[in-house]
Amino acid sequence: MKFAKRMEQLKGSDIRAILKLTSQSGMISFAGGMPAPELFPVEEIRAASDHVLTQYGKEALQYTITEGYVPLRAQIVNRMANKFAKTCTVDEILITTGAQQGIELSGKLFLDEGDVVLCESPSFLGAFQALRVYEPTFKEVETDDEGMIMDDLIHLLETTDRVKMIYVIPDFQNPTGRSWSLARRRAFMEIVSQYDVVVIEDNPYGELQYDGDMLPSLASMDTRGQVVFLGSFSKICCPGFRIGWLQAAPLLMEKYVMAKQAADTHSSTYCQRVLHTYMDMYDLDANVNRIKDVYRARRNLMFDLMKQHFPQEARFILPGGGLFIWVELPQEVNTRELLEKSLERGVAFVPGGSFYPNGGRENALRLNFSNMSEDKIQEGIPLLVATMKEMLSINVNS
Amino acid sequence: MKFAKRMEQLKGSDIRAILKLTSQSGMISFAGGMPAPELFPVEEIRAASDHVLTQYGKEALQYTITEGYVPLRAQIVNRMANKFAKTCTVDEILITTGAQQGIELSGKLFLDEGDVVLCESPSFLGAFQALRVYEPTFKEVETDDEGMIMDDLIHLLETTDRVKMIYVIPDFQNPTGRSWSLARRRAFMEIVSQYDVVVIEDNPYGELQYDGDMLPSLASMDTRGQVVFLGSFSKICCPGFRIGWLQAAPLLMEKYVMAKQAADTHSSTYCQRVLHTYMDMYDLDANVNRIKDVYRARRNLMFDLMKQHFPQEARFILPGGGLFIWVELPQEVNTRELLEKSLERGVAFVPGGSFYPNGGRENALRLNFSNMSEDKIQEGIPLLVATMKEMLSINVNS
Repeated sequence: MKFAKRMEQLKGSDIRAILKLTSQSGMISFAGGMPAPELFPVEEIRAASDHVLTQYGKEALQYTITEGYVPLRAQIVNRMANKFAKTCTVDEILITTGAQQGIELSGKLFLDEGDVVLCESPSFLGAFQALRVYEPTFKEVETDDEGMIMDDLIHLLETTDRVKMIYVIPDFQNPTGRSWSLARRRAFMEIVSQYDVVVIEDNPYGELQYDGDMLPSLASMDTRGQVVFLGSFSKICCPGFRIGWLQAAPLLMEKYVMAKQAADTHSSTYCQRVLHTYMDMYDLDANVNRIKDVYRARRNLMFDLMKQHFPQEARFILPGGGLFIWVELPQEVNTRELLEKSLERGVAFVPGGSFYPNGGRENALRLNFSNMSEDKIQEGIPLLVATMKEMLSINVNS
Repeated sequence: MKFAKRMEQLKGSDIRAILKLTSQSGMISFAGGMPAPELFPVEEIRAASDHVLTQYGKEALQYTITEGYVPLRAQIVNRMANKFAKTCTVDEILITTGAQQGIELSGKLFLDEGDVVLCESPSFLGAFQALRVYEPTFKEVETDDEGMIMDDLIHLLETTDRVKMIYVIPDFQNPTGRSWSLARRRAFMEIVSQYDVVVIEDNPYGELQYDGDMLPSLASMDTRGQVVFLGSFSKICCPGFRIGWLQAAPLLMEKYVMAKQAADTHSSTYCQRVLHTYMDMYDLDANVNRIKDVYRARRNLMFDLMKQHFPQEARFILPGGGLFIWVELPQEVNTRELLEKSLERGVAFVPGGSFYPNGGRENALRLNFSNMSEDKIQEGIPLLVATMKEMLSINVNS
């Protein structure tokens, strides 16, 4: 059987192959982007689930509307206001099967073959996978420690035909951990408001802020219904429900709902109900604070070890939140090779090349600090350093 | 913002609009395809959920692999053998967010714009919605009470360019309730094995057989890896988990897994674990038997009332299983108009026109018997008959 042409775009994720390797027992994995399971509010979810099935069993196990369970969407409306400074209504919220589905539906809604997607360089490879199905061309906008570089964005918008979408992660980006400054957010929104382009603001990490205060979302600065905001409960509660949300202006929402209905009818009624009841019975903010305390300590430990031991050629900054530290090594180092050697010492990470949609940059790596205990971080970083120094000396000598 | 061209194909479902109307309290609805919530094994699922969260909380709330939870897939392998006569391995099973997602992923894998999908005339409108995103042309194969008419199938295969997919529901079809005979299944597989075409066998109702024995699936007769089988727990356990499955040969499965990963990473870990534990702790077959007893009684009651009271111009048969009875009225009756009048009397159904992908046939209707109590059936059918007779007399007189 012949596959559709679009399937040529779709390749197995590098990360997928790596995660298979790293699931070997004993491996110290800085590779995935998984939250720490010891922080899941298991007992509270057990109580919430019990309550839901005791009180609303029939409703919780039945079909529901495509848009999702209204009381959960009302809680999200509050969260959008309180955390992301975005005022919206329940009708502007669609429950998705993780934020990943929000990206996929956005590709479906907007992208014809050959349309251009602008994204940060580097950016989230899961977004490339989801959007590639719709056969766009990716153009990477250069970034610095404050986010997208506006001159490069303007240049690309001015000189590129068919820019249809800008995909961004302004808060604690995957893979770099960087957040956009307030000035950069404002400048971005002013620029894009002059173009007929949809902005997908992917925000799974925004609440995991370890220093200072949260900055307002791009969605909160949107006056034209141009920004689609993607949120997720995977990092602030747990990923096992696969519950995220998409906020969009009513005109867009109508199409999103049709596309969602065609894709999978709706996301799990049961998970939506249990999550709603969990938030109703308990304090999600307190749970987020608990997570933040643990992740902040892991980040600090990893960063301190890196400062002490990493070769001086390595470039990295302290991320203000999220799950990742991004490391750039000298041009001549290929981090896919580094990974191979590192795995021999029992330490995994993700080579940076996967995060450039057009490839060609192989000297960076992404380290995750949320999923390993402080002991494992303490043990793993020196092992990684040893491999790194070995490779750097070979590269210098050759 | 301009939408992608494919979105022009996507329209809100008629059924969606109708279901909104029918959710008014007091409405007797034969419209939806919902299972009876009073038959959900709520207490058993509560116990299973409790067990999962007590014993495996961290794992149940974490990410899992795209393919789905292995022990659940192993249970499905057994079910495929025992119920659908299909031998397969765990690697050939992908957990999907309902069978609906299996249809959507199949469109994604196989359909280029302008490719032709053959389907039964009439067929499931949710499949049209899912596949239309990929801009195929639908050609309807004529059907009789034994399934697709083979001469028409052969004719279309011989005379149509670019037939890429055949979408069929051989067991208790939606909307007609009809099942394909064994001879028809065999003939179909012999014919399609001569063409380079994928067969999507959608089978959400197969286990809900009220008379006689189950017939082997098309998948069980497949020697070329040409059939993709879609199954669902929505009708035999409950829809609220949104857990279905897709069985495909390894070469196809590789692509399905990539497409699923890009679409939503994986379906809810928690729902997969709870469903697995429910099946482990309890007897799903006993639950299916309980459902069958209730639905059989409702079917019999509805059918008997129809035989007694329906105008003689109405054509319908006793479905051997599933959720629906299909009624054909004289050509001059438009069942969308019939619905409008019927709603005034508080009775809803789905007009048949929605089930023809190319439209043009408006004289049939679909009645659901699973979701209403015997009392409601007893009350609703005479009201529907009154409206029907009123319209028939107007049509005859005009």
